[in-house]
Amino acid sequence: MGDLRVYLDHAATAPLRPEARDAWIDAATTVGNASSIHGAGQHARRVLEEARERLAAVVDADPIEVVFTSGGTEAVNLAIKGLWWARPADADAVVLPDGEHHATLDAVEWLQTQGARVRHVGIDAVARIRPSAFAAALPEAALATALVANNEAGTVNDAAALAAAAAEAGVPLHLDAVAAFGHVPVSFRAWRDEARGRAGLVALSVSAHKVGGPAGVGALVVARGAELTALQHGGAQQRRLRAGTQDVAGAVAFAVAGEAAEAERETEAVRLGALRDRLVSGIRRSIADAQLLGDEVDRLPGNAHMLFPGASGETLLFLLDRAGIAVSTGSACQAGVPEPSHVVLAMGRTDAEARQVLRFTLGRTTLDSDIDATLAALPEAVERARAATGSR
Amino acid sequence: MGDLRVYLDHAATAPLRPEARDAWIDAATTVGNASSIHGAGQHARRVLEEARERLAAVVDADPIEVVFTSGGTEAVNLAIKGLWWARPADADAVVLPDGEHHATLDAVEWLQTQGARVRHVGIDAVARIRPSAFAAALPEAALATALVANNEAGTVNDAAALAAAAAEAGVPLHLDAVAAFGHVPVSFRAWRDEARGRAGLVALSVSAHKVGGPAGVGALVVARGAELTALQHGGAQQRRLRAGTQDVAGAVAFAVAGEAAEAERETEAVRLGALRDRLVSGIRRSIADAQLLGDEVDRLPGNAHMLFPGASGETLLFLLDRAGIAVSTGSACQAGVPEPSHVVLAMGRTDAEARQVLRFTLGRTTLDSDIDATLAALPEAVERARAATGSR
Repeated sequence: MGDLRVYLDHAATAPLRPEARDAWIDAATTVGNASSIHGAGQHARRVLEEARERLAAVVDADPIEVVFTSGGTEAVNLAIKGLWWARPADADAVVLPDGEHHATLDAVEWLQTQGARVRHVGIDAVARIRPSAFAAALPEAALATALVANNEAGTVNDAAALAAAAAEAGVPLHLDAVAAFGHVPVSFRAWRDEARGRAGLVALSVSAHKVGGPAGVGALVVARGAELTALQHGGAQQRRLRAGTQDVAGAVAFAVAGEAAEAERETEAVRLGALRDRLVSGIRRSIADAQLLGDEVDRLPGNAHMLFPGASGETLLFLLDRAGIAVSTGSACQAGVPEPSHVVLAMGRTDAEARQVLRFTLGRTTLDSDIDATLAALPEAVERARAATGSR
Repeated sequence: MGDLRVYLDHAATAPLRPEARDAWIDAATTVGNASSIHGAGQHARRVLEEARERLAAVVDADPIEVVFTSGGTEAVNLAIKGLWWARPADADAVVLPDGEHHATLDAVEWLQTQGARVRHVGIDAVARIRPSAFAAALPEAALATALVANNEAGTVNDAAALAAAAAEAGVPLHLDAVAAFGHVPVSFRAWRDEARGRAGLVALSVSAHKVGGPAGVGALVVARGAELTALQHGGAQQRRLRAGTQDVAGAVAFAVAGEAAEAERETEAVRLGALRDRLVSGIRRSIADAQLLGDEVDRLPGNAHMLFPGASGETLLFLLDRAGIAVSTGSACQAGVPEPSHVVLAMGRTDAEARQVLRFTLGRTTLDSDIDATLAALPEAVERARAATGSR
């Protein structure tokens, strides 16, 4: 893996927290299928349900509303397809903001093969979903979906306003909180209007490995009043919304990581925000035309999404990687595919600009020295990337 | 969890192998998203692809054919729904043997809401799928599915004959090898007829926690020629058949557990077969009318599926559990729901008989003393269960 010294790609995946690792080991070495009715099974079940309670407390929901999944992508697919399959017979529109994560985009694209019509909602120049534009697209829709925070640009949406608009329109809403969870306040209870039944916020996705839990674990918070069809069938587990032997160890490790992330969220927001601001201002000093994308204020604390005019993001990524600095051009989920960022395009930028972007994401293990090293390496990398890009 | 001394429910979930646990810890503490293109991501990718190669060798498939999932249930759902969504426009029949696992039954039941017509295939008195009956149901079907080994009765089917029939009929076949894997030979290459393209065996499901790997990990082997739609969308991972950040540590732990299970399979078959035979003959000696269900010869080595006439299986389970012996009345996936076993019913037994069954499943950690303890506790348990059942 070369000489990796600086990891500024926490949004792709965060290092496993030691306490989450230990919790996983403890639970995984206890034998028992949580669906078995003998003592060993009941013990596993108790461990699982305690994890569900702990994670529910972190996302501010009732334990019964927490449905463990294999990750954020499954949670998003379960929410969007599940709401689609359970929709009223006369509704066929899916409200889809631009710049959503590919889990959402690809799930909705597939639903179009099943008869869904898409109502696109533009995002603004800082990747924000305007509540008024969102509300205008809602009437009579089968379902709506929206990011709490954009995973590339880092912009934090007004989730409460989006949820209120959906509740008002009588449309079930899924919020993708994968990028937001652990970094900004996420409250299912605050955004959910219980009296609305199947309308308004009914489902919210989170993922473990983004907050220092293991990969392969996530959850969909599903309101009790929601109507949702399972994505995978095969048993009575989890309100029949998600069949399969429960990953007890994964659930416990997720709960532990989620609690730890929440416990340090406010202090980390200050610390990471300061480090991020130093990174951004340092970059602006040394590379005069570099631009910070996304909102300056309503923003994930550890996110710096930067445009380097004239420099290929991909080339920059490789040059920084060679210097031992790991960053991203956007979502890791599409990495390897040399496409312009669909988020940057949706922000009104050109195709060329959408290929000249780097995402730096800081996290729990990020130190002052990581910022120093990045600021030291970047000017030469940009210069060389510009030369390489210009010479193509 | 009480005084658990004897665990004879290995088919519900097997104890995590120490080498799989260690492999998980090693991989989980390495940072990197396997889709990231920087060095850390590429390192994770190499670890993942090595795991894929190792698991492929165990199931006798090409590495590219291995699609990691979150478990057996997801693998089965991906296979059945995936083949359904990718079916030819003029095919709407799903060939479904009786006595399949609930992952299959419930997935197919849901597909009926999407327009699928089911062609049921009966099983015989020992829970075997007769290849001739299976073949008779195949013509013009959209897809077919079958268990390699029945997870309750333990009967091992003639997978080669079922696959040959599907190839002959031009119908894509999914084999559910979750219960069989690690216990009897499973070879994707031997059962697959490459020349058939999208027909014959195209998909095979396996699960990690049944062979001493972690829960929350499985795989679907998908032939290169297969036409299959993804269950969860959201990225280019795994031939676009299964999106989502890859669970590298889970994949590695699965590969390690699968290799270990395969390495000891033949010696364990002899050892567990002898222990199982001693259990069955001991039960027959002390409880004269107890019957072994399933095939006597073509059978999973560690499985004893026993009928105790007049004794409620659920009561027996509780009494044995109180004596520190963990067994099952059937599939853990339906446990807690006091239903007669659908497998036993499909074997031609009465509703009463289908509630008087226990499944003992032996595994890696099973010792002679476990058999002794079970044989010592069972007669009184049966007597008391019969008294309780009679007095109801």
